[in-house]
Amino acid sequence: MMPEPLNNLERLCIHSITTKPWTIEEATINYSSKGVHGITVWRDALTGRNIRQTGEMLRRHGLKTVSLCRGGFFPSAEPAKRKQAVDDNRRAIEEAFELGTNLIVLVCGADPAQPLDDSRKQIQDGILSVLPDAEAAGVRLAIEPLHPMYADTRSAINTLAQANDLAELINSPWAGVAVDVYHLWWDPNLEKEIIRSGNNGTLLAFHVCDWKSPTMDMLNDRGLMGEGCIPIRKIRSWVEAAGFKGFIEVEIFSDRYWKQDQSVFLQDIITRYKQYV
Amino acid sequence: MMPEPLNNLERLCIHSITTKPWTIEEATINYSSKGVHGITVWRDALTGRNIRQTGEMLRRHGLKTVSLCRGGFFPSAEPAKRKQAVDDNRRAIEEAFELGTNLIVLVCGADPAQPLDDSRKQIQDGILSVLPDAEAAGVRLAIEPLHPMYADTRSAINTLAQANDLAELINSPWAGVAVDVYHLWWDPNLEKEIIRSGNNGTLLAFHVCDWKSPTMDMLNDRGLMGEGCIPIRKIRSWVEAAGFKGFIEVEIFSDRYWKQDQSVFLQDIITRYKQYV
Repeated sequence: MMPEPLNNLERLCIHSITTKPWTIEEATINYSSKGVHGITVWRDALTGRNIRQTGEMLRRHGLKTVSLCRGGFFPSAEPAKRKQAVDDNRRAIEEAFELGTNLIVLVCGADPAQPLDDSRKQIQDGILSVLPDAEAAGVRLAIEPLHPMYADTRSAINTLAQANDLAELINSPWAGVAVDVYHLWWDPNLEKEIIRSGNNGTLLAFHVCDWKSPTMDMLNDRGLMGEGCIPIRKIRSWVEAAGFKGFIEVEIFSDRYWKQDQSVFLQDIITRYKQYV
Repeated sequence: MMPEPLNNLERLCIHSITTKPWTIEEATINYSSKGVHGITVWRDALTGRNIRQTGEMLRRHGLKTVSLCRGGFFPSAEPAKRKQAVDDNRRAIEEAFELGTNLIVLVCGADPAQPLDDSRKQIQDGILSVLPDAEAAGVRLAIEPLHPMYADTRSAINTLAQANDLAELINSPWAGVAVDVYHLWWDPNLEKEIIRSGNNGTLLAFHVCDWKSPTMDMLNDRGLMGEGCIPIRKIRSWVEAAGFKGFIEVEIFSDRYWKQDQSVFLQDIITRYKQYV
């Protein structure tokens, strides 16, 4: 059964990268003034800021920081780079703690110079390495499966089944999964795997946007909700049937939208959130 | 265990579209003069030709027509278009018969205007509709799972598991599957599903090329073997462990290579076939 449309913005979260031309301060003021309740902060938006004060600014404007984006990128054929990645994830955990969010999204990484199986093993090792830090900081790590078109360099975890397998193997309250409709909409096992993550208590995040036909760029041509072919509301029904009641995060990378007036774009996001999510 | 490199060209097949700037007549002469033994003919290459005579020309030059590419594109939200697609697949079966090949590759299709489940059901219905024609002509139909990045408009069948499920459901000696490393290399279940198709006796075709990092175009930026991150020889070992001893088909869509001297490109294909397949 399809859920009702969302008639208020209580569960709407926007990723700072969605309105990339805005600074975090501009995004804060604009999201807040439109009644948006949540923000996921991309780390680049924090450059040169005092992170603790930025977290306070967000809270002062009524914005909950849903997650910090992003940790991960663990695999490399070079051991020194794997060490750097672990260090960087420890920094991300500190940043999340200072910002005042209890969730980090992991884009797990992949290195085309080595077999996918090796990258997958290194992802597991990397997460296990930083898990004590995550626990100490009270920050959960969400394994986000990425679309298979990113299997070469961005993530060797490409289906929710893989993410669930990995989360079950890690078997910690500090590790779970993130569901992004853009990456997973095509998967015939999606509903089943969403229910599985719900049953495991590991469904930590839900990201939305749309898949345009045609898609002109593999990275930065995501669509606004309703602009493409993803059955967003149907997938929301699965996520909610799995017990997820958290924020619904709008994450759009789009050269086209980044060129527009971001205030107009923000209004479009809100309109389409109510209409298509 | 890794198989030995292929030191002769007995199993090398090239898709006519790989050397798109050449006419079918030019491709025939050039492939043949280099000792290539097989060709897969794309239907556009037959435009304006007598198909039976083209088949004879290919045989006269020592080329086996491994398959005709492509049938499929069954789904549509519009019933009239589904009917057209079935008619077109019947024509493809006639063309395959006249050309003298016993295999058609199916790019199954998808319509972003309807749910993937509907497209999947229409693919099944479409194949069942033309199966008697295929049997009468002695032509098998190979369901080719396409990369999930094509799930919007090109194929709602995106993993070998789905293709195997469908082939088992159809359960006919005239329907099987095609394995293309470009579409499937990322899948953690690939080895298992290749073995499954081998056990079913439905593994009908094996296509190779490579996945470049970065890939600049979603359709026409495939790499030559060895130019990317696909473990081609490892996947060949799975295909051969599954009992497949047929042609290995080089299928590359590349704006870059199509701009080059096709004779040089053909030599590269042969060199890299021996080195990386």
